[in-house]
Amino acid sequence: MAERISGILTPNITPVDASGRVDEDKLCGYVDWLIESGVDGLYPNGSTGEFVRFTPAERRRIAEVVIQQAAGRVPVLAGAAEANARETIAACDAYGAMGARAVAIVAPFYYRLSSEGVYAYFREIADNVSIDVTLYNIPLFASPIDVPTVIRLASECPRVVGIKDSSGDLPNMMRMIAAIRPMREEFTFLTGWDAALVPMLIAGCDGGTNATSGVVPELTGAIYRSVKAGEIERAMRLQYQLLPLFDAMISLGEFPEGFRAGARSRGWDLGPGRVPISAAQREDIQRTQRQIDALVNDSSSLDDDQPLGMPADTIQQIVQSVMRQLK
Amino acid sequence: MAERISGILTPNITPVDASGRVDEDKLCGYVDWLIESGVDGLYPNGSTGEFVRFTPAERRRIAEVVIQQAAGRVPVLAGAAEANARETIAACDAYGAMGARAVAIVAPFYYRLSSEGVYAYFREIADNVSIDVTLYNIPLFASPIDVPTVIRLASECPRVVGIKDSSGDLPNMMRMIAAIRPMREEFTFLTGWDAALVPMLIAGCDGGTNATSGVVPELTGAIYRSVKAGEIERAMRLQYQLLPLFDAMISLGEFPEGFRAGARSRGWDLGPGRVPISAAQREDIQRTQRQIDALVNDSSSLDDDQPLGMPADTIQQIVQSVMRQLK
Amino acid sequence: MAERISGILTPNITPVDASGRVDEDKLCGYVDWLIESGVDGLYPNGSTGEFVRFTPAERRRIAEVVIQQAAGRVPVLAGAAEANARETIAACDAYGAMGARAVAIVAPFYYRLSSEGVYAYFREIADNVSIDVTLYNIPLFASPIDVPTVIRLASECPRVVGIKDSSGDLPNMMRMIAAIRPMREEFTFLTGWDAALVPMLIAGCDGGTNATSGVVPELTGAIYRSVKAGEIERAMRLQYQLLPLFDAMISLGEFPEGFRAGARSRGWDLGPGRVPISAAQREDIQRTQRQIDALVNDSSSLDDDQPLGMPADTIQQIVQSVMRQLK
Amino acid sequence: MAERISGILTPNITPVDASGRVDEDKLCGYVDWLIESGVDGLYPNGSTGEFVRFTPAERRRIAEVVIQQAAGRVPVLAGAAEANARETIAACDAYGAMGARAVAIVAPFYYRLSSEGVYAYFREIADNVSIDVTLYNIPLFASPIDVPTVIRLASECPRVVGIKDSSGDLPNMMRMIAAIRPMREEFTFLTGWDAALVPMLIAGCDGGTNATSGVVPELTGAIYRSVKAGEIERAMRLQYQLLPLFDAMISLGEFPEGFRAGARSRGWDLGPGRVPISAAQREDIQRTQRQIDALVNDSSSLDDDQPLGMPADTIQQIVQSVMRQLK
Repeated sequence: MAERISGILTPNITPVDASGRVDEDKLCGYVDWLIESGVDGLYPNGSTGEFVRFTPAERRRIAEVVIQQAAGRVPVLAGAAEANARETIAACDAYGAMGARAVAIVAPFYYRLSSEGVYAYFREIADNVSIDVTLYNIPLFASPIDVPTVIRLASECPRVVGIKDSSGDLPNMMRMIAAIRPMREEFTFLTGWDAALVPMLIAGCDGGTNATSGVVPELTGAIYRSVKAGEIERAMRLQYQLLPLFDAMISLGEFPEGFRAGARSRGWDLGPGRVPISAAQREDIQRTQRQIDALVNDSSSLDDDQPLGMPADTIQQIVQSVMRQLK
Repeated sequence: MAERISGILTPNITPVDASGRVDEDKLCGYVDWLIESGVDGLYPNGSTGEFVRFTPAERRRIAEVVIQQAAGRVPVLAGAAEANARETIAACDAYGAMGARAVAIVAPFYYRLSSEGVYAYFREIADNVSIDVTLYNIPLFASPIDVPTVIRLASECPRVVGIKDSSGDLPNMMRMIAAIRPMREEFTFLTGWDAALVPMLIAGCDGGTNATSGVVPELTGAIYRSVKAGEIERAMRLQYQLLPLFDAMISLGEFPEGFRAGARSRGWDLGPGRVPISAAQREDIQRTQRQIDALVNDSSSLDDDQPLGMPADTIQQIVQSVMRQLK
Repeated sequence: MAERISGILTPNITPVDASGRVDEDKLCGYVDWLIESGVDGLYPNGSTGEFVRFTPAERRRIAEVVIQQAAGRVPVLAGAAEANARETIAACDAYGAMGARAVAIVAPFYYRLSSEGVYAYFREIADNVSIDVTLYNIPLFASPIDVPTVIRLASECPRVVGIKDSSGDLPNMMRMIAAIRPMREEFTFLTGWDAALVPMLIAGCDGGTNATSGVVPELTGAIYRSVKAGEIERAMRLQYQLLPLFDAMISLGEFPEGFRAGARSRGWDLGPGRVPISAAQREDIQRTQRQIDALVNDSSSLDDDQPLGMPADTIQQIVQSVMRQLK
Repeated sequence: MAERISGILTPNITPVDASGRVDEDKLCGYVDWLIESGVDGLYPNGSTGEFVRFTPAERRRIAEVVIQQAAGRVPVLAGAAEANARETIAACDAYGAMGARAVAIVAPFYYRLSSEGVYAYFREIADNVSIDVTLYNIPLFASPIDVPTVIRLASECPRVVGIKDSSGDLPNMMRMIAAIRPMREEFTFLTGWDAALVPMLIAGCDGGTNATSGVVPELTGAIYRSVKAGEIERAMRLQYQLLPLFDAMISLGEFPEGFRAGARSRGWDLGPGRVPISAAQREDIQRTQRQIDALVNDSSSLDDDQPLGMPADTIQQIVQSVMRQLK
């Protein structure tokens, strides 16, 4: 029986150079830094990697670079969604040949498919690929993969070995775990909602694919290990440390620009991104960079002596900022 | 400094007799049973108590009966929302005079107010009442009380002593705790979303106002005490036990008919409710009663030896039911 | 066979005096003005009348005053929703005795009922009242009455004689008309979405219950009569005249404060309303009053020579205001 | 000054052969039939054409085939959205070189961009293309292009010559027309919501891009011409004829399978589509084909003698079907 995929996997930002091309050197360096900083896996072509904003050929190359650079040090979960089932299957097989541990496939997007349509899509893929597949549920952006559909696919498709759920819906995660674990002991449950990482892990998740781990891998790693060690109070304290940083990054400009700003705070200038930014947005990002710097600084140094909750300064800032807004 | 309200408070169903009137004798007996079963408080005129389906005079009487019957054995948090601020203030004062520990006030409903309007409403009330007020946030049914508004009210109004949040949004709960605890140590945070009771308590909530506690008070009480004792694994196991029962009750007929069915499983026939039920719904409830009986039976006897997750039978049933649905 | 209810019925604002009580003298004067300004009916205790913010006794009195003052000059459709079916039935009978032409009953709110629950509620009422009932669908605020449920009630309940739909969903209105007209020739279809009054009338609606008619009854009346006379281009021109005024009033402060400001522009100071307003909101309303004055002035004088679209000044203002916002 | 794009443009289904490849011969034949049936333009790579389910190379070829086959008989509006602004600009230029009248560009999807982000995206494109651009607003599937953003783009970008709006929001269409027409007389407004085609045309739209026109081009053409001729009652009667067919097609299987079934009713077997269909869905489509056949038959023969509303048989069927569902 295969082993579950576990720990914190980083859905890495895709570095882009000044001319708008994928910056492969930067990508290799960033992958090295992430692995050296303790992440348990990599996840190219995820939402944080802006997969939809690259061409099929670029996506193929991004996965290849990450897999080669990881060189077996950590497993790679490659985002493999393409324009349709046939193209997706071809990408899956290519990533398998490159050495990916598994692929992650988001449900069809743009159109909002019914449960039956989502089932048919994944069934078609699962019956035709030669690599393990994890379902990727992100109802904010793509057709939802509802709980009965996940159970149905898990019970019918050996190739479907896990789910990466970014809905943040804890009871739904519990419903899936309760129904699937008894029949598929090796099935992997990963959460993609950083703001609830601790509760998801406590509820039985095997790990997370968290955008924040591309910015503060030390912190997300410490959260994971704390929960595994049963140090729940410490884990929760770290979660409180992570939250204001996550909030600041998720709401800045267009996603994932805030995470790009976070990487900059760590010394990684990963380029301009693939989405045009208005002048007003550019100013807003520049204005906010220093705040992100401070939050990243707070969060990358783990302070085990601080009381439950955010650092006092941070709280003070939040209250002041709220009060300002209200005036 | 006042003490926080803590533990599990039951938003009790309002018993109704065959002629449709509030059944005061039944209500007294039910209150006694809940207290003897270990609930930490009572919460008449909550959503589970169908407050909007009673007249102002009935609501006044329901609170009075519960407060008198509790007789100081446990604190009473009385739902006090009326047609407008003036009527609500009058109800607050009346409940204070009756001996309620505090009132809970839902944001205005029907119209969806802006944050400013929600603020103005609660500010008007907080400036004019003689009893402690907890905000009641239930965005599914009423105007949302957003995080900045809660912080604003907490920082300006000494009479606002807590929030009861039924949104189920864990990160928002953390945001409120992080911002308010440092300035208002005694501020109370209660969760009304039974499906995430354990994570909410771990995140720092003082307790919950949970409809399931009116059906399986032993289980919700055990969850609360497990978390407080740091027995997180046990708490999570109990949460997994609670979930299928909660799911079955929340989705049966019109809310809170499923919880009425749950009470029946415990021997409490609390009457027909205040909302007309169609013939099809009546049949559905009758058909489901036996399943609720079984789940209640499972959940009211705490089985500490079972593994993490639901009882095997329950899982089997869920999987079979899902599969049936899919065919 | 009864006649359909037709034309523009005004869901009148409820005047309140400085002490917060219903101002009956003002209400009588306002009713007279509306009738003299050509409205085809009155609709006390609607959403614009803030029915939920008054007590049951106040609602009863408001309907009584309006019915007595109308004195048969125009029919009165009285909002009759109370806390539950029994109370609603009692209100219906009371309004019938007072001389209302029919009642309008919104679906239960706060809780979101299922279609079956909505059906059961209206069926219970329709089987027990002695006055004609119109269903009131406003899915933004209350449980939706979906198309199959309307058809079901229309086919089973002779007492249900019409629907007042404020969803603004034109295709749904057409679906109802197509299905119900052939079996219930006398069934009334009224629209409550002022921004689409002309298309709704063209699609076959008998009239509207429009909040704007309480501010510019001349304009809504002219729209109605233009469509009936087949002067579609003129009707559309008037609809373009109505839209910016509607937009300005619907978005000002909390509903229906903008319409109260509109009434003020016509010389009717109907008092402070029943919802507390924050200082910021009060300033916003004062700042906007002049803009509302200008729009009301434009709209109450019908200018048949102007080209299709809004007056040039208005457009200029809109464009400038949009541009300002964007800077 | 350029002329507006007007009339009914067909967002054509993309025929696929048994091996899953674009069936170019079928596409040419279908284009001929549409033009001969009176459509005023073609719109390849729209939502109905499943553009996201084809590869960039396939999309390029589909547009080329349609433009060549149309051969100037009708204008072609080519859907040009690609993975990012640079790729989209390249596609725009290619379609311009092929002879397209203009391109239609949907706002970025998957991620939900802010208004600023949507603005920046279209501004970047408009500043760099050599062909006229129409904005394509379909908030159900892609980031919404809100009214102020449309006005801003219309006022700043000469290359942006129109909007194709599939939101079905009539007041928003009126707001755009009122604000833009005075400054850009030649700006084109097209509606993509078939269920409200008549009201949109009455409000001032220049035409529509309607999926139903690929099935019953005679009917949509007659609607357009009736409104232009001022025969509003006839137009509305035809709209009532169109609605049940639209309803049946839009809800069958996954979009656009119902429209594919509609084409089959006209003798056009356009193949299996690009989305996998479950066995249950396949059966449902087969079961419904006969109903679609009947509705298509009703709708393609224009019966000017029938009264306002749907044919009596259709209504009877609807009522019976609703009643069956309810039992």
